Amino acid sequence: MINLGILISGRGSNMAAILAAIKFGRIKNVKPCIIISNEPEAAGLKIASEKYSVPTKVIPADGFKGWDYDQKVVAALQEYGVTPQSGLVCLAGFMRIISPEFVRQYKMRILNIHPALLPSFPGLHAQKQALDHGAKITGCTVHFVDEGVDSGPVILQKAVPVVNGDDEGTLSTRILEQEHQLYPEAVRLFGEGRIKVQGRRVSIT
Amino acid sequence: MINLGILISGRGSNMAAILAAIKFGRIKNVKPCIIISNEPEAAGLKIASEKYSVPTKVIPADGFKGWDYDQKVVAALQEYGVTPQSGLVCLAGFMRIISPEFVRQYKMRILNIHPALLPSFPGLHAQKQALDHGAKITGCTVHFVDEGVDSGPVILQKAVPVVNGDDEGTLSTRILEQEHQLYPEAVRLFGEGRIKVQGRRVSIT
Repeated sequence: MINLGILISGRGSNMAAILAAIKFGRIKNVKPCIIISNEPEAAGLKIASEKYSVPTKVIPADGFKGWDYDQKVVAALQEYGVTPQSGLVCLAGFMRIISPEFVRQYKMRILNIHPALLPSFPGLHAQKQALDHGAKITGCTVHFVDEGVDSGPVILQKAVPVVNGDDEGTLSTRILEQEHQLYPEAVRLFGEGRIKVQGRRVSIT
Repeated sequence: MINLGILISGRGSNMAAILAAIKFGRIKNVKPCIIISNEPEAAGLKIASEKYSVPTKVIPADGFKGWDYDQKVVAALQEYGVTPQSGLVCLAGFMRIISPEFVRQYKMRILNIHPALLPSFPGLHAQKQALDHGAKITGCTVHFVDEGVDSGPVILQKAVPVVNGDDEGTLSTRILEQEHQLYPEAVRLFGEGRIKVQGRRVSIT
């Protein structure tokens, strides 16, 4: 059994997609143990506790940065059983950069989803970057978190077309629909022990 | 009527795909006028002249670089009616960098195809770059040529999956099949006057 912690900052729609997939049996072997938000007002906290009965915890930044903040997160993860040995941490719209110390402790056990086909359009506002570049195909990427920004080994990607007349809102919505399929699928594969990493190359067995 | 020139260095399989689409009436308003190769032994020369009855010309580098070389190409294009005003130039595996002078003369009238979803994996060996990065989705891009490397406005893109066990050969073959669809489609749209460019953003009308 994989104990899962999810980090959010807002509505956590990808969190909800993962929790729904677990609740309805599409993901096995994964137990959601704790939802952590740096924002006290994150709408996802209520969804997690009321709709999915998963414990939640707010850890405000209070000026703490890097590992000084992240060690509070790690302490909470451990308290709820999400360990570096057998846990899984999913970032779901968590608006903080993860420190190298956190990444190293949970080596290849932290996942993130990015709204572009990495390595295109890393960083913030990936959908706007794609529009400004004039891309005709963009998409989303689930990847392991490493010490860079959106640079870790790619687990799954899904292509999404840009269409005439798209703005940031319409494109983001179209990508988000695919994110809600792709992220639970990656968690499912992780839970089933089917993700093998060799260097940058990830194979699904 | 758009007068078309195609520049090749080898077998020119994308050239052949475009010439076939014209021959069989899938592209209208575009007349192939001249195939130019920098390599005397390029296999595409024979295909162009024997199978499609299109004039060919070899312009060896002979140590000429940049505009010193390109002006010979431009002279040949003009001689065969591929003018900066109403012509179209397609690069099809042409293994030379086009000089800024050439690009400026044929502004938004030079197309290229690249075996990746730009801006990911520009430059040489794009398929190997995608494999080494561990990308799960790559593809191909038809774009206008500007003064950078694979940086011009994107006209069409097509996604292609990377699958377990792919090597450079299998992935290149899968992408090439899509190139042979995408490049003629872009030439067709150009011939029908349906490609509108605003800054980096290209819309198909």
